[in-house]
Amino acid sequence: MSAQRNIYLKMKTLAEARRILFERFAHQSPMPAEEMAVPDAVGRVLAGPIAARLSSPNFHAAAMDGIAVAAENTFGATENRPKVLQTGAEALFINTGHVMPEGTDAVIMIENVNVLDDERVQIDAPAFPWQNVRKMGEDIVATELLFPQNHVITPYCVGALLSAGIFHVGVRKKPQVLILPTGSELVDWRGFDLKQLEPGQVLETNSYVLGKLVESHGGCFTKHDKLADDLAAIQSAVLEGLQDGFDAVLIIGGSSAGSEDYARHVISELGTVHVHGVTMMPGKPVIIGEVRGKPVFGIPGYPVSAIIAYEQFVRPLIRGRLGLPDSEPQTVQVEPTRKLASKLGVEEFLRVKLGQVGDRIVATALPRGAGSITSITEADGIIRIPHHMEGISDRKPVSAELLRPLSAIEQTIVIVGSHDNSLDVLANLLRSGHSGLTLSSSHVGSMGGLMAVKKGMCHLAGSHLLDTTDGTYNRSYIQRYLPELYADKQIRLVNLVFREQGLMVPKGNPKGIEGIEDLSRTDITLINRQAGSGTRILLDYRLQQIGLNPGDINGYRNEEFTHMSVAVAVLSRTADTGLGIYAAARALDLDFIPVVTEQYDLVIPQAYFESPPVQALLEIIRGDEFRRQVESLGGYSTQQTGQVLL
Amino acid sequence: MSAQRNIYLKMKTLAEARRILFERFAHQSPMPAEEMAVPDAVGRVLAGPIAARLSSPNFHAAAMDGIAVAAENTFGATENRPKVLQTGAEALFINTGHVMPEGTDAVIMIENVNVLDDERVQIDAPAFPWQNVRKMGEDIVATELLFPQNHVITPYCVGALLSAGIFHVGVRKKPQVLILPTGSELVDWRGFDLKQLEPGQVLETNSYVLGKLVESHGGCFTKHDKLADDLAAIQSAVLEGLQDGFDAVLIIGGSSAGSEDYARHVISELGTVHVHGVTMMPGKPVIIGEVRGKPVFGIPGYPVSAIIAYEQFVRPLIRGRLGLPDSEPQTVQVEPTRKLASKLGVEEFLRVKLGQVGDRIVATALPRGAGSITSITEADGIIRIPHHMEGISDRKPVSAELLRPLSAIEQTIVIVGSHDNSLDVLANLLRSGHSGLTLSSSHVGSMGGLMAVKKGMCHLAGSHLLDTTDGTYNRSYIQRYLPELYADKQIRLVNLVFREQGLMVPKGNPKGIEGIEDLSRTDITLINRQAGSGTRILLDYRLQQIGLNPGDINGYRNEEFTHMSVAVAVLSRTADTGLGIYAAARALDLDFIPVVTEQYDLVIPQAYFESPPVQALLEIIRGDEFRRQVESLGGYSTQQTGQVLL
Repeated sequence: MSAQRNIYLKMKTLAEARRILFERFAHQSPMPAEEMAVPDAVGRVLAGPIAARLSSPNFHAAAMDGIAVAAENTFGATENRPKVLQTGAEALFINTGHVMPEGTDAVIMIENVNVLDDERVQIDAPAFPWQNVRKMGEDIVATELLFPQNHVITPYCVGALLSAGIFHVGVRKKPQVLILPTGSELVDWRGFDLKQLEPGQVLETNSYVLGKLVESHGGCFTKHDKLADDLAAIQSAVLEGLQDGFDAVLIIGGSSAGSEDYARHVISELGTVHVHGVTMMPGKPVIIGEVRGKPVFGIPGYPVSAIIAYEQFVRPLIRGRLGLPDSEPQTVQVEPTRKLASKLGVEEFLRVKLGQVGDRIVATALPRGAGSITSITEADGIIRIPHHMEGISDRKPVSAELLRPLSAIEQTIVIVGSHDNSLDVLANLLRSGHSGLTLSSSHVGSMGGLMAVKKGMCHLAGSHLLDTTDGTYNRSYIQRYLPELYADKQIRLVNLVFREQGLMVPKGNPKGIEGIEDLSRTDITLINRQAGSGTRILLDYRLQQIGLNPGDINGYRNEEFTHMSVAVAVLSRTADTGLGIYAAARALDLDFIPVVTEQYDLVIPQAYFESPPVQALLEIIRGDEFRRQVESLGGYSTQQTGQVLL
Repeated sequence: MSAQRNIYLKMKTLAEARRILFERFAHQSPMPAEEMAVPDAVGRVLAGPIAARLSSPNFHAAAMDGIAVAAENTFGATENRPKVLQTGAEALFINTGHVMPEGTDAVIMIENVNVLDDERVQIDAPAFPWQNVRKMGEDIVATELLFPQNHVITPYCVGALLSAGIFHVGVRKKPQVLILPTGSELVDWRGFDLKQLEPGQVLETNSYVLGKLVESHGGCFTKHDKLADDLAAIQSAVLEGLQDGFDAVLIIGGSSAGSEDYARHVISELGTVHVHGVTMMPGKPVIIGEVRGKPVFGIPGYPVSAIIAYEQFVRPLIRGRLGLPDSEPQTVQVEPTRKLASKLGVEEFLRVKLGQVGDRIVATALPRGAGSITSITEADGIIRIPHHMEGISDRKPVSAELLRPLSAIEQTIVIVGSHDNSLDVLANLLRSGHSGLTLSSSHVGSMGGLMAVKKGMCHLAGSHLLDTTDGTYNRSYIQRYLPELYADKQIRLVNLVFREQGLMVPKGNPKGIEGIEDLSRTDITLINRQAGSGTRILLDYRLQQIGLNPGDINGYRNEEFTHMSVAVAVLSRTADTGLGIYAAARALDLDFIPVVTEQYDLVIPQAYFESPPVQALLEIIRGDEFRRQVESLGGYSTQQTGQVLL
């Protein structure tokens, strides 16, 4: 225990660790310049200020088609006393964009010129000096500052630079980052046949994720071949990298707890470990080190840890060497859908889904484990729970850093409640249209969905709640749990699908399970669904019907939150069977013993029912393509799909 | 006049034109798919939904270092009655990430294991099933939907895809856009020697700007060689492009009014013109056409017109073919610094600079001409003035579309007032630091600056207002025009520079001007500065001193807003002389006849004086580098630079 405690004592807060990082590496000069043709420099950073070489326009130019005149020759012309000018001398025909002839300073629009003959024109109003003329330097004056150093070149800038006679610019070279994936368990995907994957082997992904992040922040990356857990090999790879001129080295550990020790030993033997361990989650075991004046990081192996460690420590260095401040995420006030405890003394990066429901943005927490890459690919934002807080309260506004633009979040339909595979079909069809809409679903069971509707935390809920007194679905629950909305006719119920629920068992049904009755067998372990889910209510109803006591069932208290998780438990022999939908069993090639056909509906507050996004969703639900794809999953009936039941 | 009227009658509103565009080309199918390695597909759009091939983890894995056990073997262990397990049989040593051995379902942390000898360990608490185990499929379940079609792949997604056994994905091919720059006046920068540029020749920039915009929106562009104003040549280039399989063609006109006629004739002869002319500004003469089922656009030649036309009509088509909705700009409420009239019946895209001053975001209009590329490179946002409005009011909130992130705008120091070249030095030094701060300056003269301070429209003002009664600068004006702030000691005055003002004359002083007295000569035309500017007050003061009547000076009523514009007027012989600073004369290689040394100060409300951004600015002003660079401009003294005068 004491070794463990020592590590914790030496850990730094995120703010301290960043301060140390910036102090150590603030002396690094910006990257040197390289010369590039202007159009190729889009997205790059100017290494120095750029002054215009040419004015724009570079000559006085006619801004209209007409005649160029000396304004003073036109003074006194009126409708009653028009003036006649000699063409070719006092009045020169000119087109837009052409050079103003010597001695002229105004253009009279052709519509206001009365051509008398080949030699004379007549005007009935005077021109004032410089009317309809784009003067030299009107847009850009030669020698003036066009862009300061550290300006990022946009496509628009290309126009200003070329117009100003700047054809090449000096931009900062891209910082070069060497990425070393380490861990004997790793395999690289390139040329790898998935069928060869053995238990214990893990596909190496972090080097690609971090490499692509380096690129997106303006750097370049080189990925080293995977290194086994071998101190000497890692050490020489780091040294070679620094000799080759890399600006930073990332040693990515495997996911094993001991693996970061390799990075620590390598760095401390070659140079200095400035920070080992930061009180943040994920990303705690990160190492900030220095070898021969260059930053060398130990990056933890869990995918979300690796990303957070990179973004907090590596990104600011890359941006700094480019002369740019660290990216400032946009933040927005959000309301968590439920209370979440968090560890005191640790800053947590909580990944959340966001959706605009009514006048607030609701935040649903995603899995918190550092190993869950989908918790960050599905996230719309990150709530940072500071180390002095023990968690966040539900429905109390907190700040979230956005990972998707606010406009995309405003275009998100939030569905909370029971899980069904047809929701994936729906999400995909919604995205295949041009509506710009996204479906974000959170799986908290049918009762959880009704409660989310009640609290105004979603646009709609998926529900299959069986009334055990009369065999109907959902309506009596709505009446009981959403009484005001029900009484005021402010709630709608739309059928999504009918579906088969049954017992999923391993292929070949090795334990010969025939039905619910077998759950009492002592050689059989169940994997259950969570309380409040429609499937749980269904199971309890059936058990009651046959007089089987839940206490007599092995594994009754082990709970999963989705059909697919139950299927995985059965596939991986964590349990012998579980109640779920046919589509989940089929997806993982399990056998399926049908128990009941049940009704799965959408519960929609009237306030959102009429909204264009929900109407767009209902249109898809009523379309042929949705029915076709759902039917093809198997175990579904779509006879009442899209029907408004309430 | 009647031809002109006809064009206007046929013009469409922006909304109508977009409706026609989408109706005509909504039938276009999404781009076909191409297969790519996952890491190379970052930024691309998925052509179909992606289901996981592999679960992640793909096996039950230890989440801690310790011993793997069957939980039921541990039941009953307590501190008083510990249990002893046989290593190698009941207790198997395991490291994080490793495969759980057959028959085990829990890991006990090594810290909680008492190793008795080589064959036995002792535990004093039971393990519950699946404790410290990452279960198979905990993150990703094989067969489950990973990403829907039309999902844009991020660096994070690379991790999820590779983990799920997806090594290649089908992404939508990039739409190919052919860009044809037309106009006999154009020259291409490649291989071009700037010294060869003749009056009337214009550097071709639009094809590069639009091409880079196409790339940034997910397409590819090919730039055709510049085409002269030659109907047949343009026509055959369009046809060849369509035969070569381009998905869209942009014919960019020259800046001449007649040049769009080429595009119109080409399109109407080869196909159909759907829209010619849209009631928007800039971008009015845009043409939406169709040839052989493909969109062919006539893009106006003024740079901002070209950009607006592209963004309103071409970008949504590119995005649509990629399966993406059109980019939705983020909008924010801003307050214009002054009232601006706008033409009824035309939707104007007004480019504005933005800055957060106090609790509001102030918007300063940039030049409105379609020819001003810097009006869009300098813009932070665009205010769209609808066609039914005659303009915008000052200080009344309106919506602006953001071109830079809000966080960058919050980091902008807004200076309004008199122009001085040392402000460019300051802006560049501010950007060369790592503060992330930007200096945004608007030139409205010294009095305009004081008024902006009074209205709370800026953080600070640049001012050189001479009190003609006692020869002092700024203080008496502050007292008079900002009486409350002055009385409450809520205003600070900091010297920026002392500078020489004098008469700028062409190199060699061809008209032999010797001083202010010569302005009365009939052969000399002045270019003046606008009323309210410090330079104007200075001139008027000198004229009064020598008893010269402004009415007797040629050009006294011609006004420019900056020193550089006055210098350009002299350089281009628009005028013979003008009063201005030495740095401007030197920049354009003009001769300079000194008139006076004057004081240029910064006027800063106390509320902003103490803020970190303004303090950072003052630190730069007091630094050696600022002084060195300002002195090198010539005509400056920095002896009191940075001194607080009030």
